[in-house]
Amino acid sequence: MSETGAKRLAIIASHGTLDLAYPPFILATAAAAMDIESAIFFTFYGLNILKKDHIDKLQVAPLANPAMPMPVPNAIGVLPGMTAMATSMMNGMMEKANVAKLSELLEMAIEMDVRLIGCQMTMDVMGIKREDLITDIEIGGAATFLEFASHDAITLSF
Amino acid sequence: MSETGAKRLAIIASHGTLDLAYPPFILATAAAAMDIESAIFFTFYGLNILKKDHIDKLQVAPLANPAMPMPVPNAIGVLPGMTAMATSMMNGMMEKANVAKLSELLEMAIEMDVRLIGCQMTMDVMGIKREDLITDIEIGGAATFLEFASHDAITLSF
Amino acid sequence: MSETGAKRLAIIASHGTLDLAYPPFILATAAAAMDIESAIFFTFYGLNILKKDHIDKLQVAPLANPAMPMPVPNAIGVLPGMTAMATSMMNGMMEKANVAKLSELLEMAIEMDVRLIGCQMTMDVMGIKREDLITDIEIGGAATFLEFASHDAITLSF
Repeated sequence: MSETGAKRLAIIASHGTLDLAYPPFILATAAAAMDIESAIFFTFYGLNILKKDHIDKLQVAPLANPAMPMPVPNAIGVLPGMTAMATSMMNGMMEKANVAKLSELLEMAIEMDVRLIGCQMTMDVMGIKREDLITDIEIGGAATFLEFASHDAITLSF
Repeated sequence: MSETGAKRLAIIASHGTLDLAYPPFILATAAAAMDIESAIFFTFYGLNILKKDHIDKLQVAPLANPAMPMPVPNAIGVLPGMTAMATSMMNGMMEKANVAKLSELLEMAIEMDVRLIGCQMTMDVMGIKREDLITDIEIGGAATFLEFASHDAITLSF
Repeated sequence: MSETGAKRLAIIASHGTLDLAYPPFILATAAAAMDIESAIFFTFYGLNILKKDHIDKLQVAPLANPAMPMPVPNAIGVLPGMTAMATSMMNGMMEKANVAKLSELLEMAIEMDVRLIGCQMTMDVMGIKREDLITDIEIGGAATFLEFASHDAITLSF
């Protein structure tokens, strides 16, 4: 790497929950603002993030995670309505702290030329069609990610 | 890093579920095909992946993950038999999309000289013996991984 | 990167469970012992790890994880008391294998000059105050992490 630091940030987003969708976008937009060329590869459950009109509907379950803010017992967390409640609570906490909504971060990422790559194999496995996904992305595979990541990149997976 | 990209791919696999066992093998075999020297370090729950005759028995629970394909309510997902059903469904989706089984990806990784490293500390903690694990691996620790990862590597954790 | 390997290790800890708190500390202290300058950025649920007198109280739920040692059916795992039981079991396995407690690894990390960075945005979102966190840390954001990670670093996220 050069003295002046990494030139790229290459992230894999393999989860499609509300909580784990935030770090890729926050890091990628922060990096883009630092003139670090950024890309996010959306695979497995993470491909949900790129579905049309879906990003602000991502959810988080208050279950199997004793480190949640205001944790509820799992016997309560499994009950109908609790995922909606936890999702609403987390969105409320974000809003109160003036954190942008995921759709705003997505738009910002697109404007900042963050490369958003949907995983072809995941589309095949989950029966997701190109028209199910938003337009401002490209489609690629593991090789697409590795090619980008192999040039002086900070590499992370969420 | 050289102009021609990273020379190595160093992955940590710390989960032993069906869904999270795929990305390390898909990336490592794709990298090996691109002449990137690859290693996967299997630690914590991830060490299960290296147990003898176990890799095709890995499971996924339809629980606490609102981003699953065809999600079921958590109150249903906890019921007996649902983990087996979700596992069978995911294996079926992989097969239908012509994605190799994990045992085939493992064999491919071994043939392509991907280094497979089982975590010694995890063996000690979980009471797993060398003979419980497949033969084509080495045993090592955090230092083994860091030594490999510290030479011009793409580094990821799943 | 130089012939002699990476100079840094930059880790993101975004989960605050017992199981996922271990890898960052084990890797960071191992790296520090190899003269690799290390930092851990604690964000989202991971910020819990830095709460005062909290690190040895982190828990793990025996739920939605079919790869756990001695897995229980999810219908049992959700019952009251099961998270405490799984936590106690995992702590016991660590102790029996002579693995240091998390508080000891934390202390070791501080002594070895591992940079521990609490996420400012997470504090804002979750209403966590500076005095809720231990003293031997700094507070920063995505840019703090990226700046550190962009100089010849092994980068990982747990």
